[in-house]
This record gives sequence, structure tokens and C-alpha cells, in this order.
Amino acid sequence: MSQTVDINAGRLWSRLMELGAIGALPGGGVNRQALSDGEHLAWAKVISWAQEAGLEAETDAAANLFLTLPGLDRSLAPVLAGSHLDSQPTGGRFDGAFGVMAALETAVSFADSAMARARDFTVVAWMNEEGSRFAPGMMGSEAFAGLRDIAEIRATRDSDSVAAGTEIDRLHAAFPTLPLRAPFRPFAYVEPHIEQGQRLERESAVIGVVSGIDGKNTCEVAITGQRDHAGTQPMNQRRDAVMAFARVAVRLQEEIGLHDPDIRFTIGRVEVSPNAPSVIAGEVQFRTDLRHADGATLSRLATRIAPLASAAADPCQAQIRVLVDAPPNGFDPALRAGIGASARSRGYPALTMGSAAGHDARHLADLCRTAMIFIPCRDGISHDPAEWAEPAHCTAGTQVLADLVAPLLAEGL
Amino acid sequence: MSQTVDINAGRLWSRLMELGAIGALPGGGVNRQALSDGEHLAWAKVISWAQEAGLEAETDAAANLFLTLPGLDRSLAPVLAGSHLDSQPTGGRFDGAFGVMAALETAVSFADSAMARARDFTVVAWMNEEGSRFAPGMMGSEAFAGLRDIAEIRATRDSDSVAAGTEIDRLHAAFPTLPLRAPFRPFAYVEPHIEQGQRLERESAVIGVVSGIDGKNTCEVAITGQRDHAGTQPMNQRRDAVMAFARVAVRLQEEIGLHDPDIRFTIGRVEVSPNAPSVIAGEVQFRTDLRHADGATLSRLATRIAPLASAAADPCQAQIRVLVDAPPNGFDPALRAGIGASARSRGYPALTMGSAAGHDARHLADLCRTAMIFIPCRDGISHDPAEWAEPAHCTAGTQVLADLVAPLLAEGL
Repeated sequence: MSQTVDINAGRLWSRLMELGAIGALPGGGVNRQALSDGEHLAWAKVISWAQEAGLEAETDAAANLFLTLPGLDRSLAPVLAGSHLDSQPTGGRFDGAFGVMAALETAVSFADSAMARARDFTVVAWMNEEGSRFAPGMMGSEAFAGLRDIAEIRATRDSDSVAAGTEIDRLHAAFPTLPLRAPFRPFAYVEPHIEQGQRLERESAVIGVVSGIDGKNTCEVAITGQRDHAGTQPMNQRRDAVMAFARVAVRLQEEIGLHDPDIRFTIGRVEVSPNAPSVIAGEVQFRTDLRHADGATLSRLATRIAPLASAAADPCQAQIRVLVDAPPNGFDPALRAGIGASARSRGYPALTMGSAAGHDARHLADLCRTAMIFIPCRDGISHDPAEWAEPAHCTAGTQVLADLVAPLLAEGL
Repeated sequence: MSQTVDINAGRLWSRLMELGAIGALPGGGVNRQALSDGEHLAWAKVISWAQEAGLEAETDAAANLFLTLPGLDRSLAPVLAGSHLDSQPTGGRFDGAFGVMAALETAVSFADSAMARARDFTVVAWMNEEGSRFAPGMMGSEAFAGLRDIAEIRATRDSDSVAAGTEIDRLHAAFPTLPLRAPFRPFAYVEPHIEQGQRLERESAVIGVVSGIDGKNTCEVAITGQRDHAGTQPMNQRRDAVMAFARVAVRLQEEIGLHDPDIRFTIGRVEVSPNAPSVIAGEVQFRTDLRHADGATLSRLATRIAPLASAAADPCQAQIRVLVDAPPNGFDPALRAGIGASARSRGYPALTMGSAAGHDARHLADLCRTAMIFIPCRDGISHDPAEWAEPAHCTAGTQVLADLVAPLLAEGL
């Protein structure tokens, strides 16, 4: 390493735990959904730590939070790093929060050091990565990357019919001194995150060099049958949407889900109508979630969903609407090499791996050189109060971030 | 026919339509759920017609409504006939209401005639047959037959947490002059009802002589898997409760639902948890509804549900709880013969048939000689605003009831 700093492992961990107490659930974990009171409190905490170290706090129209350590030449594009502070309703303390705190710890360690920095280093917390309160997720990074209109985001409503726009205004009003920043093109973006899987743990690795984010296809499938009385309608005259759904699910699992070991295929949401015990269902709506690292395989399999569902649903009808069709994206080779070099030099066992989970980094990759650093999480459990990352692994991921970012900040000196 | 009267077809139809206007839905049909304001208004209407003809109105602890045409010897057991006035939330104008109005028209025709009657003839409207607001259905007839405790019924709550007991008290308070009648053993019970199926219509018959009510087995099945991230968890390490449900449903359909043409097997209610598009479901709960006219076949098939579900759910767990296990019941042969004889004499094409739907008559059959008279409904549609019965068929069902009841009332003279 030509120039870097050693991060403060104790400060990182104690701040992670302090942040995890905000929105804490009685049985462990956190409920800190996007734009909630819990996220207000998390902002206040993180901003106070940042300002104490001389960072400048700003927001933008999409309620992303930026905390900037100024470089010598403010006209140069800043290096951006971070993740998100929002959680699932029964989420963990590390998903998102680790990435923001790793970036903040890196910034504070840089600020405390004599290291020369040409560029700004900006810590970011993206608005609504999870998508549990306002759907879809990753709204903040989509807005920043110009992929989604701010008006569309503001019009989105939660299950209590509260508009995201109302909640964005409420968050801005709670932090009236924060300037509104226009979107900018970063020099690079790096996102540290827990793996949310078991590969690192199983292979005793500490750092995941993320090669890219799997392509993702999600569809809404509506099966239409004929509502009838469960007691009277003979079996051979039924068009039972629940039975059609069962046949479709088994068929899709066999033909698509078990096609090859790198596939992830899930039906996680199923709505039956009228969903009464003595009524043959007239309609079932469900979502398919298909992911693959290879774009050609993903496309080929995705196009098979509609004909397979239609055939298996017969005599019911199946209608398919594609909600997401995102090709896989590969992260920047130079940044990936830098992550590997830091891990080697620091003695952290590392592994190159894809990400089957989506992250804000997907959208940043359209704007600038982008990379992700994974650390292990216990038993691969995430989106759950049991989510846990070891302190030593949090330290390792943060140190690799610092080692990667330091030379980027020096470029231009 | 030794003695009977001709019912007044015009009065029957105009009153059926007048009753159907109470709780009417904008697009047709009615929403007149148990113990609702709509049922209050229906009671007031029906009681006024009854009292106008000299009938005595009473209720009981379970909020059943009794309208009695006195016979010469009040000490003799009364003949009971009727059905229910409550409807599904999007119900029709004939399900239940036809049976009550047929019995009322019969009573009023008897009152208008010179026919000698030894026994009381009592029109009944059972409380909460449908079970849509307070579950399960047929509470009123269960209480009357001593099959369910009144305290248990009163403690049942609707989806707004309103107790049935509170609503029973409110109904009683709205009709303060009605005496509370103790349960009694009727001489016989006859229930006219729309078929809720297509058999009469397909075979051009007008009267269904109901042989009995199919046996019914309902179970609650809970499939437990492991909640996981849809993007990361490899397919071969999943315990996906939705996929397990699909396999179980297909297997039960093949092995039980298609076992023989007389089976009715339905999965109408399915609840997925957490039911999020990107989360592998950890739990699915669903209901099975199995009906058959043959008790031995029903028992044999019902006992196969648990082992079939467990085998197909693997590697998930399936736990089964039996909610209802009611054997088939056969209606009284003499009453059935009487229905057939009236239909023949009046020139109504008749058909002997089972009822796959449950009715209050199931519970009355434990108390006294019981029978049911079916009339056709268009396209077999019921529990739907499109439900429709032809005026001529309503007349036929009511006339057969009058012809059946008249000689019963004379017994004891």
C-alpha cells in the first residue's frame, strides 16, 4: 500500500452497536423502515459523528444523505462510498448500516490522519434501499443515477396511504440546515455490505471481492379461473385458480428453478381471491423472482415463464407482466483488483463471488466505476433479527475500503 | 293430496323481491351479514308480514327468529320450516331468504284457509348460517340443537373485534317485545333452498328431493420451512414453504380430489408468510375442504391427507389439525317420499340428489325428522350477486313445502 491509514476498529464497532439501538426490536434486530422516525434518529446520530470529524452534511431531492470529507481540489469528482440506513420491518443491525458505518469510519480515520487527499470523499446513505415500506426498493440510488423520476418516487404510497413525498418533506424539515445537493458524477463508488449468504462462511473467507450483481427478472402472474361453491361444483367442471397455481409453481420450479446450480428462483408472494375456505378460488396472483449471473441464460429462462405458466394453468388463464428485467452487471476490474490486493496485504482470506442480492451499487455502476466489498454474516441469515456480523469481519471490510479509497483520493495530487 | 292449500305465487315473489331490497348492493345481490343492521331491517319486515297474518313472533338466546301459526293443540310438537336471512358479504337474494319466505308464504296461506291444523307451524330464520362475519356458520341451528354452547357463540368476534354476544344483545334490544323461547323438539323440520349447483338445471328438473347432506372433513394444514433471502440461498439448500405447498396441493388433488366423481376437494384459503416477493416463505397455512356422500369413503380419504401432505412437503414439515369431521346424514325417508309425491301430483319434474353444501338442516336432523327441498338456480351460481331463481321455481318449491307440511299439521287431529 503506497498510502493508507489503519481504521479504528473499536470506534467502528461501538458506533455500529449504538446505531443498532435505534429502532431496536424487543427480541433483537431493528425496524427502521425508510423515512420513518427511526431513520430520522439514525440520520441525527450519523450526522453528529460526521460533523464532529469536520465532514459536511448535505441531502438531495430524493432524501439521500451525503457526508463529505473535503479534499484539496473541490472541483475534482468525489469518491463515494456507503450503503443505506433503512431496514426491513424485522431487519438486522448490519444490512446497509455496516456499509454506511464502514464509509464513515474510513472518512473519520482519513480526517484524523496526515494523509494527503486531492478529492472529496463522500459517505452516502441511500434512501429506501429495502422497498418494504415504499416499493420498489433502491429508490434513492435510482433517482441519483437518473433512472427514476423524483415525481414518481414522491407519489409512491405506503400501506397507510402516506406518500413518500410527504415523508421526504418531513425528513428535510427535521434537518433544515442541510443544503440540497444536485446529482453529481462520482469518481468511483464502493459499497461494503454483509454477504447475506453462506459462501464466505463456508469457505472460511473474510472478504468477498464482488464480481457483479446477478441479473434479475421479476414477473407478476395472474391466474384467472372461475369462483364456485366448494361443496357443489363437480371436480371435472372446475377452473380452480389455487390448483392451477400449484401446477404452475411445480412446473416452473422443475423447468426453471432446477435448470442449473447458479439459478435462484422464488415465488415469495401469493394472493388468493376470495381466499375463503369453502369457495373455489377465482383468482391467484403471484410474483416470480429469477436471478442468474449469466445474462443470456437469464433471458432464455425468463422468456419461458409465460408459456410454461399458461400450459400448466390450463383450464385457467395465466397472464404475465414483467416488473423488472435487469441484466447482470460486472463491477470495475481495477477496483476489484484493488480489493483483492488490500485483502492479500492485510492477510484476510478473500474470494471472488457474484451477488445474487440486488444493491444500490447496481445503479451507481451506470454512472461511475463501481465495486462492492462483502463480509460474512452468520449462517447467511439476513432480513432477520438474528442477522450478525463478527467485529473482526466488520474491521476487515472497513480496512479494505480504506485501503481501496486512499489511493483514489490521491489521484489528481 | 288429502288436504293442502294452493300458495299465493304473486305474494311470494313480490315479498321475495321486497326482502331482496334490504341490504341490496349497488350492482345487484345483497350484503346482509349475520346480526348486521341489514338483518335488523329484514327481521322487522318479515315480522310485520307474519304478525299481519296472526303469527306469533319469538326469538331465543341464539337470536334465531320463530314465527308461529298456532294449531288447535298447543301442547303438540310444532312442525318447523325455514332457513336463514343472513347472506355472504356479496351474496344473492335467494340463498336462505327463499327458504324463510317459502315457509312464511306457506304459513300465511294456511292462515288464510279453512284447513284444520292440530299442531303449531313455526317459520324459523336461523342466526348466522353463512359464517362470513362470525365463524363458523350455522351457529343458530347448532345452538338450537344443543351442539354448541351459547357462551362460545357469544364470545366469537368479527374482523372488527365485535363480539357476537354484543350483536345478539343489540338485536334483542331492537325487538324488545319478542319473548325469548327455550329450545324445543320439533315434530319435523323442512328446509327449502336453492340448489347452489347445476344438476336440476341440466336435467330440466324443478324439485330436488334431497337424500342427505354429504359428509365433510376440513383441516388446517401448516407447512413450516425456512425463511431465507430469495437472491442468495442456493436452490438445493432451501426449505421453501410455497414450493412445498404447491407439491402438497398437486399431490392431494391427484390422490384425493380425483379419486372418484362424487368427491369435492377444495383448497380455498392459503396464507403465505411473510408473503414478500424477495423472501423465501417460511410458512404456508391452508385449509382443505373434502366432501363425500359416502361416510366410509370420506373417512378413508380424510385419513390420507396427513401422510400425503407430510411426504410431499419434505424437506418442509406439515402439521395437520382437523377442524370439522361430520359424517354424511340421510334425510327422513317418509318426508322424502312426501316431497316426491307432491312434485308428481303437481306436475313438477323431480330428482333425488345429495347436497354437497352444508345447511342448518344437518343439525336439525339430530333432533327430529328432517328433509330439504331444492329448487334450481341459474347456472348453479350462488354466493354471488348474479344468483337467480325463476319465479315459477320459487312457486314450485313453496307449493311442495305446503303440500308436505299440511298433512303433518293434521296429525293429532
